[in-house]
Amino acid sequence: MICNDVALEGVELEAALAEALNTPTGTADIPAWTDTKVVGQRLPKIDAYERVSGTAVYPSDITLPGMLHAAVLRCPHGHARVKKLDASRAAKMPGVRAVLTPESPGADIPWYPGEKGYVSRLLDTHCRFAGDEIAAVAADTPYQAFDAVRAIVVEYEVLPNVVGLDAALAPNAPAVLDGPTNRAGDPRAQGRGDVAAGFAAAEVTVEGTYSTGTQLHVPIELHGAVVRWDGPKLVAWDSLQGVFPAQNTYARALALPLSNVRVIGHYMGGGFGSKLDTGKYGVIAALLAKQAARPVRLFMTREDTMRAIGNRPAVRMTVKLGAKKDGTLTAIDFSCTGSGGAYSAGGTGGVNWLPLDLYRCPNVNTVSTNVYIHAGPERPFRGPGHPQGAWALEQAMDTLAAKLGMDPVALRLKNVPDISQGRQDQARYTSTGLATCLTEGAKTFGWTEARARVPQAGPVRRGVGVAAGMWRGGGGSPPATIIVRLVADGTASVNMGASDIGNGTKTWAAMIVAEELGVPVDRIGIEHADTATTQYTGASGGSKTVPTEAPAIRAAAIEVKRQLLALAAADLKVDATALSIADGAVFVTADPSKRIVIRQFRPLAQRGVLVGVGVRGPDTHGMAVNPWGVHFAEVEVDTRTGLVRIQRYLAAQDSGKVMNRLTYDNQVIGAITMGQGLALTEDRIMDAAHTGRVLNANMHDYKVPTALDAVVAPVIVAVDPKDTTCNIAATKGLGEPATIPAAAAIANAVAHALGVRVVDAPISPQRVLDALAAPRTPAKGVRS
Amino acid sequence: MICNDVALEGVELEAALAEALNTPTGTADIPAWTDTKVVGQRLPKIDAYERVSGTAVYPSDITLPGMLHAAVLRCPHGHARVKKLDASRAAKMPGVRAVLTPESPGADIPWYPGEKGYVSRLLDTHCRFAGDEIAAVAADTPYQAFDAVRAIVVEYEVLPNVVGLDAALAPNAPAVLDGPTNRAGDPRAQGRGDVAAGFAAAEVTVEGTYSTGTQLHVPIELHGAVVRWDGPKLVAWDSLQGVFPAQNTYARALALPLSNVRVIGHYMGGGFGSKLDTGKYGVIAALLAKQAARPVRLFMTREDTMRAIGNRPAVRMTVKLGAKKDGTLTAIDFSCTGSGGAYSAGGTGGVNWLPLDLYRCPNVNTVSTNVYIHAGPERPFRGPGHPQGAWALEQAMDTLAAKLGMDPVALRLKNVPDISQGRQDQARYTSTGLATCLTEGAKTFGWTEARARVPQAGPVRRGVGVAAGMWRGGGGSPPATIIVRLVADGTASVNMGASDIGNGTKTWAAMIVAEELGVPVDRIGIEHADTATTQYTGASGGSKTVPTEAPAIRAAAIEVKRQLLALAAADLKVDATALSIADGAVFVTADPSKRIVIRQFRPLAQRGVLVGVGVRGPDTHGMAVNPWGVHFAEVEVDTRTGLVRIQRYLAAQDSGKVMNRLTYDNQVIGAITMGQGLALTEDRIMDAAHTGRVLNANMHDYKVPTALDAVVAPVIVAVDPKDTTCNIAATKGLGEPATIPAAAAIANAVAHALGVRVVDAPISPQRVLDALAAPRTPAKGVRS
Repeated sequence: MICNDVALEGVELEAALAEALNTPTGTADIPAWTDTKVVGQRLPKIDAYERVSGTAVYPSDITLPGMLHAAVLRCPHGHARVKKLDASRAAKMPGVRAVLTPESPGADIPWYPGEKGYVSRLLDTHCRFAGDEIAAVAADTPYQAFDAVRAIVVEYEVLPNVVGLDAALAPNAPAVLDGPTNRAGDPRAQGRGDVAAGFAAAEVTVEGTYSTGTQLHVPIELHGAVVRWDGPKLVAWDSLQGVFPAQNTYARALALPLSNVRVIGHYMGGGFGSKLDTGKYGVIAALLAKQAARPVRLFMTREDTMRAIGNRPAVRMTVKLGAKKDGTLTAIDFSCTGSGGAYSAGGTGGVNWLPLDLYRCPNVNTVSTNVYIHAGPERPFRGPGHPQGAWALEQAMDTLAAKLGMDPVALRLKNVPDISQGRQDQARYTSTGLATCLTEGAKTFGWTEARARVPQAGPVRRGVGVAAGMWRGGGGSPPATIIVRLVADGTASVNMGASDIGNGTKTWAAMIVAEELGVPVDRIGIEHADTATTQYTGASGGSKTVPTEAPAIRAAAIEVKRQLLALAAADLKVDATALSIADGAVFVTADPSKRIVIRQFRPLAQRGVLVGVGVRGPDTHGMAVNPWGVHFAEVEVDTRTGLVRIQRYLAAQDSGKVMNRLTYDNQVIGAITMGQGLALTEDRIMDAAHTGRVLNANMHDYKVPTALDAVVAPVIVAVDPKDTTCNIAATKGLGEPATIPAAAAIANAVAHALGVRVVDAPISPQRVLDALAAPRTPAKGVRS
Repeated sequence: MICNDVALEGVELEAALAEALNTPTGTADIPAWTDTKVVGQRLPKIDAYERVSGTAVYPSDITLPGMLHAAVLRCPHGHARVKKLDASRAAKMPGVRAVLTPESPGADIPWYPGEKGYVSRLLDTHCRFAGDEIAAVAADTPYQAFDAVRAIVVEYEVLPNVVGLDAALAPNAPAVLDGPTNRAGDPRAQGRGDVAAGFAAAEVTVEGTYSTGTQLHVPIELHGAVVRWDGPKLVAWDSLQGVFPAQNTYARALALPLSNVRVIGHYMGGGFGSKLDTGKYGVIAALLAKQAARPVRLFMTREDTMRAIGNRPAVRMTVKLGAKKDGTLTAIDFSCTGSGGAYSAGGTGGVNWLPLDLYRCPNVNTVSTNVYIHAGPERPFRGPGHPQGAWALEQAMDTLAAKLGMDPVALRLKNVPDISQGRQDQARYTSTGLATCLTEGAKTFGWTEARARVPQAGPVRRGVGVAAGMWRGGGGSPPATIIVRLVADGTASVNMGASDIGNGTKTWAAMIVAEELGVPVDRIGIEHADTATTQYTGASGGSKTVPTEAPAIRAAAIEVKRQLLALAAADLKVDATALSIADGAVFVTADPSKRIVIRQFRPLAQRGVLVGVGVRGPDTHGMAVNPWGVHFAEVEVDTRTGLVRIQRYLAAQDSGKVMNRLTYDNQVIGAITMGQGLALTEDRIMDAAHTGRVLNANMHDYKVPTALDAVVAPVIVAVDPKDTTCNIAATKGLGEPATIPAAAAIANAVAHALGVRVVDAPISPQRVLDALAAPRTPAKGVRS
């Protein structure tokens, strides 16, 4: 997507903000929560009725008068040049209102990988993967649009493609980009200490090679937008995790001021990193709408989404661990190779973070190598790189534990860190619940007993496994500006730029206001995810939504409370500090009979509204904020069929204070399911020998776990270290840390059940049978 | 409409707010404007393109999928009871989806005159004017709905009606309400001093009787709404002057919490008091939509609007003035009688204010009598009562001047007040431009010359006249809460609850932000008039929008500026007080080369947005804030046809600081035109003898001045007394004060031309001819 100077993300932003002096944080004088009454309860989503009744309007539900439907022509070849394109017949077909080709105005704007040094355009005649956009049509009906796309006559020069890592790195491989090699720059080394000395000091070493498959984004709502021009202003209803990044992308792509772009995303049907920003579809829709002077709906098909919208890249990893006999790690050597597809050099992003940071170890070396291939692009995917890194590291830790004769939980407990060794400043963690997750999780799971009693004979074998993880983000990422309003009838509302990506953001936002203002949760409205009416914040991704927004919401609510108590104090002729709020009333703490019912409070009615603004400024504690998780899995493996079934599961998470225990648990369950997919079934299969196409770009052949496959009623242990340093809401992110250890925990349970290890994900029946036939099977080579 | 405890209006609200201690004003520490660069310029409306191109979406333009169209059955009789109503055939007609009768759930909610002591319901079987609502239908198309309404079979008991003031007060007149008489309570007396003594001290007295016609609301966009239920929540697009009063009315009528009602009114096609709140139509539409589970559009027809939506009531007035020979007023005796129609007792509201307050006079007595008649209701109408009062008082002043042998301007100048004698506290005015309006207006108009040179012979006679006026309101009416935002690309936006009723509110709001933040006006977005996304404020009426919102907008912009300068000061390593803002940049005042271009300012990009909240608290200066105006007209009267043509016109207004000179002038032109209608052509005619119906409920028979009739290029003198006390924007209201003297100025010019006076409005050709035939013709009796 388009390079974005304004909407900086994550660590870079935090550092930049810390430099900006005098930034009002709005939270500086507010002590962090310790005990809460509403926050932490199990509450159903405040929009549950709309969601289950079908009245919630998702972007794909938007219907505008005169709206056209668009379809996109995509390259069917892994690598080709468009020699000739004739859309004249398509343009004359019934219902066709606009046709966009690479020659159309605006279609030549740079796209991957950004404005500087781009190699691709919005619509391009040099196609580098099967799915690259070439042209688009808008027509009165969807089928007219699809028919018209088929009627565009294209003459391709089909070029040789390469979709495997090794093949791409081979001499004389077809060039994906213009460089002399398909390697995206030099391998990136990161580490600390003296690894050679670390291994020399080791009393035990283990080494292994592991790999994961390519996991595709399969959100229930497809990627797409409905767009409308109001004169010079664009309005887009886009299925997104963040409306503000998309506002910026639309503005830059179409050369509009930000104020002429309104992006709305009140509901969205799932996003796990692929909806952090709009895609080519949004800008194509806007250009078609401009041409036709009509609103345009462009939603990608499921097949196109699976080809082109992004993925968690396949990675090949080698891990070597050195340890003392007591389990103390002395050295970690880690290398990985992956591909971001045809345009992105980010294929291994985040993969090395767990080797760098999860365990205390003075000597660490990591090397990451990225390769271009003729395939669809990588995209952030729930904990980018981390589940892959966990897949390798946590299996290697189990192998090490076995070699040491230690319990896997005990080995991990031996190496719990208290500083972030991956960070240059070696900052202390504000809290790490890793040890508690290990001990409490093991105790609740019945780890010791289960590990001991598992029978290792018979055709169906049982095993238990454990894996730990952490997430590099999750500490919150300013900016967030929140407005809370209390109106005359005692109801309140929250104005929040963040998207609710389905995990209950609106609900805990209301709970925070309820906590501070004593307004019932069902009397709190949420206004959100609309660039025209809410305030800038980053996308809801990186497990940063709770720690970013919650402190600002709380600060805004407290400001409203201050104003309300000032009015009430004047009315009751007491000092504001003598007052409390609960159940829709303000009362004198020492004499609750002296009370004001807020919805009958005349000075409030006279003001009409009290408004509080809360800002989440940059962290100033100079410490590292990270969430942690440890997962325990019990599996049955049928040694006759190779099928793996998860029988029992426990996730122990330290994400700080729980906002809503119900949606907390739901998010962990979803995370486990996604890890299960990575571990057992999900894998993009490409036609490496011939066309370079994705062969399983559909939900039948690409197997996402369904309700029948998913773990039944996992036990979830919420570890709360009462972290009053991380932020005033005492909370950390959850969405990604709960995904990271899942696949590795399942792999370790399978290895425990079988006595042999399947090192390549997904652990398909065939791989199980192969492993049983040939123990110690190495990684099967190139993956894509 | 429904009684409204929450949304207090005007004077009552101000007094109540002044009591509420510790109310943050947000403006307390900000000095009032003296000089401005942007504010006061002539700028076209920022939404001019949308308005003229047809892309602006008015409530009547809203089309929703599945939307039904509604029509209303109204009583055709001036007074009747519904004995039997059968809607069974209508309900079965093609396309009919919902039918509402007086028996339907929710149709029995109390309506006029409010919750306590109501005598009417939303749909009622006792109809008290021809136009009262009885039933309603929603169908797939408008014509299906109209047909279905006609298919409702009603058996009426037709009762005797009374539509004239004298007839209604006669013994044994048909009772409009249940009381023993049609007089709405005792006549209300207001005054001061000793009027008898005042007349005893007078050296000259004059006395006269005057009357005005009933002026109907004829906004270009009809009254109506499109409503939709989202589960338990109602959304209404309603053509309104204020979305918040309507939110309150919908909520009370439908027993919903405020947070479950969203009212949106981004555009609206004219409102002059009849759109301060929603009407029965809105609630009827909501009930139909609930029944049909479909969105419903209910816009009144033009005919129904003219029958039922409200009017400026006809008033009969008697004035007696006493003065010393030098023109000093010694006594005013004023009485008036009017009707609010069938349900409202407010027929004479505001009529006595000019006699009480316009001129310095120690002894004043006023008596106001209200009568119920079987006619559609009065409604606030641009300066309620004031143009009628001016019609009588200002003609009497001219008669007095003639009797004294004084120039009319000189007589008025002699009696300019400096305290508000109508107010109990006799507060001083923060400013009164009355004298300046008289002198500057007369000078610019060439009053003395014109008054002297007018020939008084020949068939076409010329005359010039003057009249003064003031508006009781126009000082601003809290609350107003404004949010201003500055975003990363240097554009800004204003979040404002107030409606832009077509007079440029959005434009001057942007100009105020441009003034303070140096952002170009066309880079400022406006978010307004939406109860879900903007903050509570009263309706845009009472000439209070500018003085209410402008100070709060300015305060909010100044808060954003404070934050921006703090960031810039840190960046430039100077004190914030050393900085200035202009043309999209912050610079060191003493060294403008040290500058930051706001849209490239990294700390702003990192914050994403700066938010400022501004609140207009109650006035604390204890003074009276009122706007003033003096109008000069030159007319030609054809003594053969009785036709009056306005040849030349000048309006001198003191509304304090001008926000936008272009829209200021436009608003004055509209006001003059409305006064012209009252003076010359507009008059509801009722069938007093028989049906009680309005006989000219259409735009052909009810004559609103059109572009061909209106005064060409009136001269507008904007008097600015640099009132830094009234509020921090140094500004007062304009919409109503510019209407108030217009009709009287025209009447005085006609009298000057003819030598005889037409005392009844409108000055129709017949009345001119009658007056020429029988000089000193008295008022023609009962008007309705």
